[in-house]
Amino acid sequence: MTAQYSVFGVPDIPMIKHGDRLSEVIGRALEAGGLSLQSGDVICLAQKIVSKAEGRMLALSSVKPGPEARELAQATNKDPRMVQLILDESTEVLRHKPNVLIVRHKLGIVGAHAGIDQSNIDHQDEEQALLLPEDPDASAAVLRDELQKNTGVDLGVVITDSHNRPWRMGTIGCAIGCAGIRVLDDQVGGQDIYGRTLHATLINRADAIASAATLVMGETTEKLPVVVIRGLNAEQTLSAEDRASVINRPLEEDLFR
Amino acid sequence: MTAQYSVFGVPDIPMIKHGDRLSEVIGRALEAGGLSLQSGDVICLAQKIVSKAEGRMLALSSVKPGPEARELAQATNKDPRMVQLILDESTEVLRHKPNVLIVRHKLGIVGAHAGIDQSNIDHQDEEQALLLPEDPDASAAVLRDELQKNTGVDLGVVITDSHNRPWRMGTIGCAIGCAGIRVLDDQVGGQDIYGRTLHATLINRADAIASAATLVMGETTEKLPVVVIRGLNAEQTLSAEDRASVINRPLEEDLFR
Repeated sequence: MTAQYSVFGVPDIPMIKHGDRLSEVIGRALEAGGLSLQSGDVICLAQKIVSKAEGRMLALSSVKPGPEARELAQATNKDPRMVQLILDESTEVLRHKPNVLIVRHKLGIVGAHAGIDQSNIDHQDEEQALLLPEDPDASAAVLRDELQKNTGVDLGVVITDSHNRPWRMGTIGCAIGCAGIRVLDDQVGGQDIYGRTLHATLINRADAIASAATLVMGETTEKLPVVVIRGLNAEQTLSAEDRASVINRPLEEDLFR
Repeated sequence: MTAQYSVFGVPDIPMIKHGDRLSEVIGRALEAGGLSLQSGDVICLAQKIVSKAEGRMLALSSVKPGPEARELAQATNKDPRMVQLILDESTEVLRHKPNVLIVRHKLGIVGAHAGIDQSNIDHQDEEQALLLPEDPDASAAVLRDELQKNTGVDLGVVITDSHNRPWRMGTIGCAIGCAGIRVLDDQVGGQDIYGRTLHATLINRADAIASAATLVMGETTEKLPVVVIRGLNAEQTLSAEDRASVINRPLEEDLFR
């Protein structure tokens, strides 16, 4: 037949807490749902649950904003403690204006707020903020190893986050951590249908996979932080070596700092 | 069960020529493949076949580069005739350097080369270039009307193109024309799982759909320019009114001109 894949959410993933082992949580949820993983499946996880499991939650009351954060907070209408956290997590402020603060995260990822998030977390008695995982590629690699060991099948893992873009409205899913995935597929030097050499075709498969996952995952109250993509072309999609960090455009090639 | 959708390519779409009626071409290919469209299906088409059907191919020999194009061609190592075409198609040059030319297309879309493409087209005796459709939202609307009339079911249509991004390597699929799709899903003012008000969640569903489609569509020799996405949440995904042009960030909000 024809090229085809499917995307489904893993039902009944519980609220994740610091210390939870995600491979076990996912295994239990799959079993309870009568589902099992197959060779070539790509498991996509919302960054939020990876950060929670890794204890990346922080009480804003513990943050003491310095002068730069206080000034930037005024210019952006943001909480100075949150701005201090954003500065702590980044290497460079790219742009700011009221309600907007775009930085380069220490991981190399450019985006709003250094990926720090306050939605869908339990703020309990005081306001909390959730940082990105310290090393999302490493988190993805550990998860892949454990899931592969538990299931005996070859898998890919993608940790997704939602990103804004400078010229296009609305967030899309992007890959911030990958294991077992062909992240950037370099077709340069290949040929098109008519045998003409391709000069500039570098395809970002990881971000496309993340976007496909977020159509099920949702970003608000869907409660489907784990999504399985099944049936992708394994040769195009799977690769033992790649990591999401290769997506970050090198500084010297950045025309929009 | 759980939230789920599937993505499949329509097999045996022939090479498209100027004047081809895409709704009929797709109808015939589906029938030959024993497939039929269902209510809620989203039909994704590569921009290339829409442009070809609409006769947006142009011989480079017909283009006379002016002084600005010749200068820019030298700075970017590009064919001066191609640069003239790019300038004709755009309102503003945002950045250039050797091998890179980023402009704002007349449609408002920011990207490399004004979307003009030379791969997977028959160059015959002289070099050709393929422009974007004149009004991709209108193209999508006509296609949707015809497909709905022919099939009797409610459909969405997305015309996809591959875009680069300033801080992330590799192209991803984006929506440049839409009909029947909830393009931007505004969750601002809604609530998260804990009842906290969402302040900044505008989700670009059309670009995510385009990315999901390009995982099957491919960008080189896959020959699957038409992809069907089936099973998306209709309430989240379908909308009679939206158009892809709303994705373009308004000039006054652009921090990266």
